[in-house]
Amino acid sequence: MDHMISENGETSAEGSICGYDSLHQLLSANLKPELYQEVNRLLLGRNCGRSLEQIVLPESAKALSSKHDFDLQAASFSADKEQMRNPRVVRVGLIQNSIALPTTAPFSDQTRGIFDKLKPIIDAAGVAGVNILCLQEAWTMPFAFCTRERRWCEFAEPVDGESTKFLQELAKKYNMVIVSPILERDIDHGEVLWNTAVIIGNNGNIIGKHRKNHIPRVGDFNESTYYMEGDTGHPVFETVFGKIAVNICYGRHHPLNWLAFGLNGAEIVFNPSATVGELSEPMWPIEARNAAIANSYFVGSINRVGTEVFPNPFTSGDGKPQHNDFGHFYGSSHFSAPDASCTPSLSRYKDGLLISDMDLNLCRQYKDKWGFRMTARYEVYADLLAKYIKPDFKPQVVSDPLLHKNST
Amino acid sequence: MDHMISENGETSAEGSICGYDSLHQLLSANLKPELYQEVNRLLLGRNCGRSLEQIVLPESAKALSSKHDFDLQAASFSADKEQMRNPRVVRVGLIQNSIALPTTAPFSDQTRGIFDKLKPIIDAAGVAGVNILCLQEAWTMPFAFCTRERRWCEFAEPVDGESTKFLQELAKKYNMVIVSPILERDIDHGEVLWNTAVIIGNNGNIIGKHRKNHIPRVGDFNESTYYMEGDTGHPVFETVFGKIAVNICYGRHHPLNWLAFGLNGAEIVFNPSATVGELSEPMWPIEARNAAIANSYFVGSINRVGTEVFPNPFTSGDGKPQHNDFGHFYGSSHFSAPDASCTPSLSRYKDGLLISDMDLNLCRQYKDKWGFRMTARYEVYADLLAKYIKPDFKPQVVSDPLLHKNST
Repeated sequence: MDHMISENGETSAEGSICGYDSLHQLLSANLKPELYQEVNRLLLGRNCGRSLEQIVLPESAKALSSKHDFDLQAASFSADKEQMRNPRVVRVGLIQNSIALPTTAPFSDQTRGIFDKLKPIIDAAGVAGVNILCLQEAWTMPFAFCTRERRWCEFAEPVDGESTKFLQELAKKYNMVIVSPILERDIDHGEVLWNTAVIIGNNGNIIGKHRKNHIPRVGDFNESTYYMEGDTGHPVFETVFGKIAVNICYGRHHPLNWLAFGLNGAEIVFNPSATVGELSEPMWPIEARNAAIANSYFVGSINRVGTEVFPNPFTSGDGKPQHNDFGHFYGSSHFSAPDASCTPSLSRYKDGLLISDMDLNLCRQYKDKWGFRMTARYEVYADLLAKYIKPDFKPQVVSDPLLHKNST
Repeated sequence: MDHMISENGETSAEGSICGYDSLHQLLSANLKPELYQEVNRLLLGRNCGRSLEQIVLPESAKALSSKHDFDLQAASFSADKEQMRNPRVVRVGLIQNSIALPTTAPFSDQTRGIFDKLKPIIDAAGVAGVNILCLQEAWTMPFAFCTRERRWCEFAEPVDGESTKFLQELAKKYNMVIVSPILERDIDHGEVLWNTAVIIGNNGNIIGKHRKNHIPRVGDFNESTYYMEGDTGHPVFETVFGKIAVNICYGRHHPLNWLAFGLNGAEIVFNPSATVGELSEPMWPIEARNAAIANSYFVGSINRVGTEVFPNPFTSGDGKPQHNDFGHFYGSSHFSAPDASCTPSLSRYKDGLLISDMDLNLCRQYKDKWGFRMTARYEVYADLLAKYIKPDFKPQVVSDPLLHKNST
């Protein structure tokens, strides 16, 4: 695997880390076992005092993974045994993938190509017994918002459109709840676009939807050119497997957004995203994990992989010349738990399916253990925010009375 | 250095990581340079596209460090050049330390021992030109709250007590703002105790104080036995060197607490703490760094070092037998910046002084670049919290209409 030195010094063969799929693979391959054990404890935490246990998946799932060349990893989070409640173990899956065809291909072929690419990965999740599966942000299309061109709007579809129909069959077949983040066209309201996650129940019914709450205008992420901030609040969807919510992409930078899903009772919050190395990679292992700790729930973080090349060049607002590529989307999907433990990440450049068994009892155990909800003093912050949103808000500043003595 | 296998498999000589002072020392000593460069990028981020630059400190500071055997590190965060503002570079210091004498020694000797231990470290900060210095939580005493014994209350002192007087001289001598987290006894209000940070100006005057907002009741951290939640709000102190705030220890687990200091205009928020490996170590590099990213300000995280042994045994509410020790406090103090970059951490077990030059212009540059304040939608969350604190709050839950079909 020859190494390509990219602009920010990152040696990569198609997005690997010095030839390794992930940081954790690099560390475990290059550190003595006793050193790696300690590094692993510090970087991935401990679940019930131990490092995460691997799950043995059925051969049928592994066969699909090798045949269709996608990364397949599985680890489980346990909780302490309780007297009054049985364990509530749910098997959850995340899929990260690159687009299937060049962005010059006909749009319908591009979407069909992604369906075909995802089918075996969803099948692998199905045969592995996944109960709840989440796909990546705007999974049916290239992340074309960098171009600010309107033609890509054709990829938008209603909540009950083609991609939902494709997934409803699989949801029924595998008794699986599926979270499907798409570009939505609201045909009942002026055909306006939204960045929306559709929640499909394990009976194939549409349980509901959530629209992205916080919209970026950063570099190539010109999403405010296409859609506004969502108007669905912070819904938690009660499914037969547990209470889930969806914090879409840029929403992960907003602690209040994470907080709100927790206040509404979420046990698992998914963060389907599309983000690139240059911009956010050192932040990626921090924000979701912090949310899981602070709000005592599980988080599933998904990011697409690959570099997408668009027909017409575009500029990125960074003073550099126009260019045609958007990426590298660095994948690295992972799960984070309320006890600060987390899974190693999926590959930085391959399609992948990450599976995790989670005992949802861990959420309440950590609310009790750390007491973050009990000690939160929400009334103090309700009062502060109520004042802050007023034009005459005055920050609470204590000035050094000798301040001006210093400056003369 | 013989290695001691501790209960959670952590091999340590007095708290080292397999013989190394810190995770970053372990990785840089055991990975090939090109691998370490990539791991460093992922774990410590990039500042202005580069890894952090080291600062060359005066020989006099280094001499104090070797003579008094404390870890001394220095790195600088730069910002982009601007046309309308000059760089606003401030030199900031953090001190982590173990107690000086056994907890069986007379209390006054224990405090005097800590003053004597800190004097050369503060001198090193002074000769190195530190502008703002922050000490660790309850720095004048052992972290005795694990015992729930009342006698340790004798360590408490008024805001203008002995420790403040000791520091005021040094503040004047070195033209240095000093943040001094102590156990406060409020003699004007019934001699009640508080966990308080005293802010001493660079002219030696007391600018003000902030009392710990969120109080733990977790394991050995029986702080609610001694003091209540603070009543000083979220003050930002305007000093000649910049706007600072103090988020004390357990407050780091509360994103709303971090948020509030940012809304009041803080450019640097200190997090003086006292926390132990078993409980929080995998969380330590996450929470402060997330706060710096989400709120676009710098964070200085300080944790004490060592294991403290108390005269009378105590239990920890974990079902295990009584014991006399509290620790290992794992140090690892570090700085985090708004651009997601951060310094390697100080030693896990030695006293230490961490110095950083920070261009405070980076805060506003990142508010503009990422737009987190602009896209925050505070009014949505003001409304949610106002409802949440009411007894009749109803979570926003969308239930699968076929939920009961499943369970029959």
